[in-house]
Amino acid sequence: MKPSASAEDVRAVCEKIETMGFRAHPMPGAQRVAIGITGNPGPIEPAEFEGMPGVAEAIRVSKPYKLVSREVKQEDSLVRIGAGVEAPIVGGRELAVIAGPCAIESRDQAFRAAERVARAGARLFRGGAFKPRTSPYSFQGLGQEALEVLDEVRERFGLGIVTETIDPANCDLVEQYADVLQVGARNMQNFSLLKRVGRSRKPVLLKRGLSATLEEFLMAAEYILSEGNYNVILCERGVRTFADHTRNTLDLSVIPAVKRLSHLPIIVDPSHGTGKRNQVLPLARAAIAVGADGLIVEVHPEPDRALSDGFQSLDPGQFELLMREAAAIGTVLGRSLTLNP
Amino acid sequence: MKPSASAEDVRAVCEKIETMGFRAHPMPGAQRVAIGITGNPGPIEPAEFEGMPGVAEAIRVSKPYKLVSREVKQEDSLVRIGAGVEAPIVGGRELAVIAGPCAIESRDQAFRAAERVARAGARLFRGGAFKPRTSPYSFQGLGQEALEVLDEVRERFGLGIVTETIDPANCDLVEQYADVLQVGARNMQNFSLLKRVGRSRKPVLLKRGLSATLEEFLMAAEYILSEGNYNVILCERGVRTFADHTRNTLDLSVIPAVKRLSHLPIIVDPSHGTGKRNQVLPLARAAIAVGADGLIVEVHPEPDRALSDGFQSLDPGQFELLMREAAAIGTVLGRSLTLNP
Amino acid sequence: MKPSASAEDVRAVCEKIETMGFRAHPMPGAQRVAIGITGNPGPIEPAEFEGMPGVAEAIRVSKPYKLVSREVKQEDSLVRIGAGVEAPIVGGRELAVIAGPCAIESRDQAFRAAERVARAGARLFRGGAFKPRTSPYSFQGLGQEALEVLDEVRERFGLGIVTETIDPANCDLVEQYADVLQVGARNMQNFSLLKRVGRSRKPVLLKRGLSATLEEFLMAAEYILSEGNYNVILCERGVRTFADHTRNTLDLSVIPAVKRLSHLPIIVDPSHGTGKRNQVLPLARAAIAVGADGLIVEVHPEPDRALSDGFQSLDPGQFELLMREAAAIGTVLGRSLTLNP
Amino acid sequence: MKPSASAEDVRAVCEKIETMGFRAHPMPGAQRVAIGITGNPGPIEPAEFEGMPGVAEAIRVSKPYKLVSREVKQEDSLVRIGAGVEAPIVGGRELAVIAGPCAIESRDQAFRAAERVARAGARLFRGGAFKPRTSPYSFQGLGQEALEVLDEVRERFGLGIVTETIDPANCDLVEQYADVLQVGARNMQNFSLLKRVGRSRKPVLLKRGLSATLEEFLMAAEYILSEGNYNVILCERGVRTFADHTRNTLDLSVIPAVKRLSHLPIIVDPSHGTGKRNQVLPLARAAIAVGADGLIVEVHPEPDRALSDGFQSLDPGQFELLMREAAAIGTVLGRSLTLNP
Repeated sequence: MKPSASAEDVRAVCEKIETMGFRAHPMPGAQRVAIGITGNPGPIEPAEFEGMPGVAEAIRVSKPYKLVSREVKQEDSLVRIGAGVEAPIVGGRELAVIAGPCAIESRDQAFRAAERVARAGARLFRGGAFKPRTSPYSFQGLGQEALEVLDEVRERFGLGIVTETIDPANCDLVEQYADVLQVGARNMQNFSLLKRVGRSRKPVLLKRGLSATLEEFLMAAEYILSEGNYNVILCERGVRTFADHTRNTLDLSVIPAVKRLSHLPIIVDPSHGTGKRNQVLPLARAAIAVGADGLIVEVHPEPDRALSDGFQSLDPGQFELLMREAAAIGTVLGRSLTLNP
Repeated sequence: MKPSASAEDVRAVCEKIETMGFRAHPMPGAQRVAIGITGNPGPIEPAEFEGMPGVAEAIRVSKPYKLVSREVKQEDSLVRIGAGVEAPIVGGRELAVIAGPCAIESRDQAFRAAERVARAGARLFRGGAFKPRTSPYSFQGLGQEALEVLDEVRERFGLGIVTETIDPANCDLVEQYADVLQVGARNMQNFSLLKRVGRSRKPVLLKRGLSATLEEFLMAAEYILSEGNYNVILCERGVRTFADHTRNTLDLSVIPAVKRLSHLPIIVDPSHGTGKRNQVLPLARAAIAVGADGLIVEVHPEPDRALSDGFQSLDPGQFELLMREAAAIGTVLGRSLTLNP
Repeated sequence: MKPSASAEDVRAVCEKIETMGFRAHPMPGAQRVAIGITGNPGPIEPAEFEGMPGVAEAIRVSKPYKLVSREVKQEDSLVRIGAGVEAPIVGGRELAVIAGPCAIESRDQAFRAAERVARAGARLFRGGAFKPRTSPYSFQGLGQEALEVLDEVRERFGLGIVTETIDPANCDLVEQYADVLQVGARNMQNFSLLKRVGRSRKPVLLKRGLSATLEEFLMAAEYILSEGNYNVILCERGVRTFADHTRNTLDLSVIPAVKRLSHLPIIVDPSHGTGKRNQVLPLARAAIAVGADGLIVEVHPEPDRALSDGFQSLDPGQFELLMREAAAIGTVLGRSLTLNP
Repeated sequence: MKPSASAEDVRAVCEKIETMGFRAHPMPGAQRVAIGITGNPGPIEPAEFEGMPGVAEAIRVSKPYKLVSREVKQEDSLVRIGAGVEAPIVGGRELAVIAGPCAIESRDQAFRAAERVARAGARLFRGGAFKPRTSPYSFQGLGQEALEVLDEVRERFGLGIVTETIDPANCDLVEQYADVLQVGARNMQNFSLLKRVGRSRKPVLLKRGLSATLEEFLMAAEYILSEGNYNVILCERGVRTFADHTRNTLDLSVIPAVKRLSHLPIIVDPSHGTGKRNQVLPLARAAIAVGADGLIVEVHPEPDRALSDGFQSLDPGQFELLMREAAAIGTVLGRSLTLNP
């Protein structure tokens, strides 16, 4: 649609699409609204729409993914976390930093972590309540108890809450507590879960699968958008290769590749992306330098006592250093990151 | 337990385990019953059990996976599909062949496929009702309608039915129709689904994930066994590598590796494992030669008209040749495969 | 050329090619001679040749590799090792087995290995004189001393000698002793070495690089053929992947893929391809079943005392079993392998 | 050795080592000299040396690589390119940038490239004279003619010359012209070549192989140092993975990993590391941010007319932007990069 298009114009186009038996996906941008169409069995004649008021142009999308494509929507998508004018936005000028422990282990641990990450400038808190673990005998998270702790963390520290949902039924519970629904790497092609979070009103953080190609990654996001949820944040978290000096190989080249093909924001997880504490800081710097919209970092008040992922968690002091360096590199790229004084 | 142990002896050991607050997993073998213990937070003193009637020895399992390990159960597991003395068994002397189309497209297509694969000697039929597809806009399967067709296929052709379940809620439906619940490669670490099929009374076919290590593969199986379902058939279906002459790289070395570490049967999927029709036959021969317990093969009455995976599906004539060659190679290894006259 | 083409016809075509300033590559097959052309900067008009006596057809090769392509030469190439009517041929009905120790450690070790592998039916002997080792501090081979031992092995046991050459200068020495020049996986794209062995009159065994695509593998062979040596045997020896239950992942699907694209014979190295002794036998069976033209296997009289690769070497008894099973599987595919009585 | 150790003390220790029949490797650092020992068949008693004048401590190296290890030499190695107090140094505070075309195509092309990269602030020039190409039919470089052009480039623009050597015999020629001998990724385990450049007096730029582990990479460098050439610059240039949105996957995590294990400098090649022009700039920024000691970048005066690698070459304007951004990011890490005014 043209920047000058009215809400009425947008509605008219959407109605026409629905009348044709297809689904309309209006996605607002800073300047203008893009409207995607899905459900059409074949190509639609652009002329059907080009004469309508407010329509700038009608484009046939050449990629297998449609709604996530920059062909449909040229402007970067901004994903607002929570309500309020002060709410953090992912994908804009400000870098987004999500920090916190791998798993919520106790109210005390969560509060200590939250207090420190908030003080360092993070505005979003991560913490697992339901943990997908390789072994059935490993700690699987505190479940609802953890969700309640996360609720308190939001209340007390003003942090937006990012936590993982592991299956469609579980999503009913998690979305009552979370500000952002995380879909983990192992679930990137759990299509039932993707459809479910696509019907949620909460933003989704979608992690790249361990061996997902870029196209598969974008197609997974497409599942979510195609259900009507356009607030998706992508996350690179390392892929599986032969290399054995890190747990995964962080593929930073995917950031500029996503930026070229899609309007969705993308952040980087240097904690899982390397699996080694001493790699987190340098790769976090590199992630900002390559153009990521933010970071998700594991921070534990006492990493050596963590019930999971301690070896890749930063302590609060290391995280403060990361924030300062990320902010400095961000400045070079015209991105801001506010550190608390 | 000793070969001579009575049902009473087994029950007594299980009761003692339960009394200690742990879970007992009695797994019968051809000669003797193995009893696994889970739920114990730390090591248990072997002497607790070694004096009990019928106990041969008490072993501490050194691997992260317990119930799937050969340390717990030395004899190969035999997985019986369906009821009756004539029911096919996977893991025994007879090779198991599961064949049929990628997806059930119609009653006619399913019947034509079933008629031909049954005539060629297959005793198990595959056919997708719910298809996990990379794109939300691809054919996703006929759902319950397909399940009803599969029911008819069983009835009419005497074939056991193998079909995929894609999430825990979906499993409630699928297990009413299937003889074997298939968990697809993309769901190998969908732990909610693994737990759900672990509570089913139907055998499970667990496909290796695209980038799963052997340990992760066995741990995924462990999720199922730890819930009480010991009838798991593993399946190698190719892994993701840099190689581009096939869609996936079939890793046949995993067969002898699994045989050494686990008592579970393992079959091979040369259709997904290569993604190319002209590769299916040679790799099927190789799979039998390397020691697999059987094959799962995509067969379509008219591959060029298939709604999915046509390029890797065999036509019925090619499948008959595959059966003859697999039978001949099986003979070299002392395995049988009955071809219809 | 037509089957009926005379030597004179072949010569005339070659002369015409040379007159045009290009290079002619006459490659004899069982039925007819194929003549490849290289050195042409662009397409050549087929009509230039199609009217000449004995010419069947003139084809433009569509692949980046030319002389190795089946487009140029439809018949399988047969590579004769050594002279004499009884000389082993790779690529024909008979399976070729190359066996022996990783490195020649002493005359005694070599003779003991040779005696046993010859008795089991192998007609070709492998043994490293110059060893490319990851560490500069590892045993690098006995050099010329080993070559002289290999000479004696040929003399005494009637085995053809396969040994590795590691650089162009080294090739001057090795080709005086070897019947087949081996180019190792790490040198698959050592183009100076490829050109050098391309100018040798000895057949070349070219191993696939650790991360070589099929096209790169065939292009490496093309380097050799383009220099005039058409006697190239390809060898799959495992590629590097994330999988950690074997040292490399043996990619058996490359065998039918090579057979479709090229006329060159291809064998399999299950010793390096798995890196584990207990995997060698099953993968050797699979290699024959998939359609390989033979095997190269590490056999040591006392594997546990080997100076290199002992953990993947078979002892002579295991090798005899391998020969029996390979022969039995070969029979299913119409291939022969003569075991000594 | 202690910082206070005299040249005499160093000589005495080296003599003692040689007297024992081993090889001494004195490697000077900014503060103190480290002396490595090779050629010893087993451990040496530290006490043999600890009492000698100037000796700080005697350490047994626990890694398979010795001379490249930080255990042997704690201080970062500085590699000086060429002579003179103004000569560029790789590994110090100043970032090193090597830029120029993939291949030297003509005097004019080389001069135009050199003029622009020098003006942008690069002090080292790259340009291939001998090109290892996947196809025997691709442009293989101008050979000696290109070396002579490079000589003129040094003379005219004051740039240090980095060019590739492809085999031991070829090295005799290349080292007459080059300031730095480049060993390409495909030759990383060409041990004959590694030994040859190890006997050169010119510094060596060693590129990581396409599927080299970190240990293999360091072992390849060890080959060079073990022959007495301690001036080795490592280079990450992307590894081969399943990912297909870039030609290779740039593994930036190897930079901090190398820094922890080795004293050698390491730079990054974002041109080969991504294979796409639009990826070079963001990944170059990331490389500096992660802590690399510099960059090697393909720059061509007219990328679209390049005879090789045009699709990944920057034009001079893009390169100037890269220099400015790299300098700005370097500042954050305390590294300098002088841009010409």
